[in-house]
Amino acid sequence: MSIISIITDFGIKDGNVGVMHGVILGIAPDTKIVDLSHVVQPQNVREAGYILYRSATYFPKGTVHMVVTDPGVGTARRPMAARIGDWFYVGPDNGIITMFLERAKQNGWPHEFVHLNKSEYWLPVVSHIFHGRDIFSPCAAHLARGVPMSELGTPFTDPILLPLPRPEKTKNGWKGEIVEIDHFGNAASNIRMDDLGKAFDQKEKIHVKLKDVEIKGMVHTFGERPVGDLIALMSSTGELCVSVVNGNAATRLGVKIGDPIEATFYGQ
Amino acid sequence: MSIISIITDFGIKDGNVGVMHGVILGIAPDTKIVDLSHVVQPQNVREAGYILYRSATYFPKGTVHMVVTDPGVGTARRPMAARIGDWFYVGPDNGIITMFLERAKQNGWPHEFVHLNKSEYWLPVVSHIFHGRDIFSPCAAHLARGVPMSELGTPFTDPILLPLPRPEKTKNGWKGEIVEIDHFGNAASNIRMDDLGKAFDQKEKIHVKLKDVEIKGMVHTFGERPVGDLIALMSSTGELCVSVVNGNAATRLGVKIGDPIEATFYGQ
Amino acid sequence: MSIISIITDFGIKDGNVGVMHGVILGIAPDTKIVDLSHVVQPQNVREAGYILYRSATYFPKGTVHMVVTDPGVGTARRPMAARIGDWFYVGPDNGIITMFLERAKQNGWPHEFVHLNKSEYWLPVVSHIFHGRDIFSPCAAHLARGVPMSELGTPFTDPILLPLPRPEKTKNGWKGEIVEIDHFGNAASNIRMDDLGKAFDQKEKIHVKLKDVEIKGMVHTFGERPVGDLIALMSSTGELCVSVVNGNAATRLGVKIGDPIEATFYGQ
Repeated sequence: MSIISIITDFGIKDGNVGVMHGVILGIAPDTKIVDLSHVVQPQNVREAGYILYRSATYFPKGTVHMVVTDPGVGTARRPMAARIGDWFYVGPDNGIITMFLERAKQNGWPHEFVHLNKSEYWLPVVSHIFHGRDIFSPCAAHLARGVPMSELGTPFTDPILLPLPRPEKTKNGWKGEIVEIDHFGNAASNIRMDDLGKAFDQKEKIHVKLKDVEIKGMVHTFGERPVGDLIALMSSTGELCVSVVNGNAATRLGVKIGDPIEATFYGQ
Repeated sequence: MSIISIITDFGIKDGNVGVMHGVILGIAPDTKIVDLSHVVQPQNVREAGYILYRSATYFPKGTVHMVVTDPGVGTARRPMAARIGDWFYVGPDNGIITMFLERAKQNGWPHEFVHLNKSEYWLPVVSHIFHGRDIFSPCAAHLARGVPMSELGTPFTDPILLPLPRPEKTKNGWKGEIVEIDHFGNAASNIRMDDLGKAFDQKEKIHVKLKDVEIKGMVHTFGERPVGDLIALMSSTGELCVSVVNGNAATRLGVKIGDPIEATFYGQ
Repeated sequence: MSIISIITDFGIKDGNVGVMHGVILGIAPDTKIVDLSHVVQPQNVREAGYILYRSATYFPKGTVHMVVTDPGVGTARRPMAARIGDWFYVGPDNGIITMFLERAKQNGWPHEFVHLNKSEYWLPVVSHIFHGRDIFSPCAAHLARGVPMSELGTPFTDPILLPLPRPEKTKNGWKGEIVEIDHFGNAASNIRMDDLGKAFDQKEKIHVKLKDVEIKGMVHTFGERPVGDLIALMSSTGELCVSVVNGNAATRLGVKIGDPIEATFYGQ
């Protein structure tokens, strides 16, 4: 048994995701396939990368994470596979792995990359515009059924990386920006629990500013405040996040990806 | 082989549902996972409960139905598991099981509840705001691989129940209200085929009133009337329902959850 | 191991698709179930048929493709199964198979049809309005676990076929119409790569007219032109298609299903 997860920007209407399932099951019939998201904003490589980054390590070791958000399909951009820690990536070499790879480096996890250039592991006919079906699904399936990654292509060491917005230290805290808005309208930033460090032990003394609103004191969970209250808390993957209890913070405040956010510690 | 079904209000965008699949497969690799719905209206416990109620018994005995619509996550509300008839429930103790449990009581099915308080069956690190990933998925997976429910926590007997709108007997029929509106715009009520009883044998003599429109006579299926006609019929799970043939009754009539509906029998 | 794919117009909200998974797994527990699309426009038999046609052959031989877009549910329309080439179809006899069957005939693939009229292969109770759950899922599951198609019903030879718009030969090319618009806004026509024949070897000499815009020369893939450019190319299943690089051609041009499109060859 092995697992392939899939992230794409293909939507759920046209059957293209299901076709990839079909191709995978034709090559590796025992694979469990998990759909992570298929409504990544079209061509939004960074959004796909964040989903990969937050999700990858909750899967069993050996899981193949296939991500197909691929504006450069059919051009010179390399199709690639990677081993990052205990997990595999299969998809275009366009920066999707940036955040996940950065965590691997921080944790000292091994990582290696191959250019998927062995066409014997692809479908016999390859379209110019659907490598998800014709290259990535077959390669992911071969990985899942135990073909060594080194068989699938030529090693390389210089994957494309996205420029990432970094949080900045201030006198008593951090300045960052909103990097994700989820289904509930929770707005997550690039300031991490690790950045706040010991200050988070006195979380009621951390003030969070977003869109001219200042939230005085952080909480652990929604139910600590009345319905409709604006709160600041840590997301389930450790990012500083602004929410409305049983409501939608992004809509309420008009938050957009890239908006500045600041956390200031008023304790000792 | 065992089955876990999942109902959430997480949406399909952020990867959180897929992460729960990953957690489950790490603990119980042979599980079949079925996604029932992930677009329950945020925090709408009653809507999640109706989906559970209508769907649960179509699954094989032993299926674990995990439902995560959980506005009280991280507060004092209990995480729970239940055996209801031949099926299991895993999720918050917040009333989701109300309708399904009521049917179990009507049918004389056994039912028992445990408070999921044995942290050895959770993920090692538990977030304050994502028990679906950290508590419910691991517990569902342990149930699915055969751990007895009694191992996962302490028994209790007083699950939270939602107040449910009851239909009222009138002189020649029933008064009820709309409780669900489906993807097609069919508006289902809390008046059941069982309520109508023998009258339904003369279904052409049952008149249905909704939003000042009176539909004279019920039908069995859509194709009995021309496209665009407003009809009254029994839903596939036995609720009195108002529809438009190849159209959308909810939009046509401006129907909302809670709107009153009345069925009157003009026969003998 | 066997595979059932599912296409419906049921939406993703109400749990009805998951219920079909539950019914299938109760009968054929080892089946892999692949969701192809559940957001076919309500009652749009032709749209469901195109998804089937484009997807079916990417699945392993023996896959059962179940399609439930069924405005005639509960009326005299036949529930049917078909063997088309190496794949099975299960669903209503309402024209869904038209395009897939036409390809089978062009390729000389065998095809046969049965009327699913053996109720011992259905659920014990059959609703008038949810044959997807009560007839098609059980029959698909029995096929998947190896019951011969001939056991499930009576053979017939006259399946319902949809009238299909045909492209017309012009002096130096083809006139056709838009038949599908995908998630990205790519507008696909009924003019196929095979129709263009040798002309496609000089693709830069093919001009494509849609909505009063003329695109001079076709390309292989998006990245050959700058972001925002309108392009003409072959879809991944070989249909002439109009797109915008990293954009949405359907929105840009106001394209609708049925709009005329013309391809003209200006070479030798």
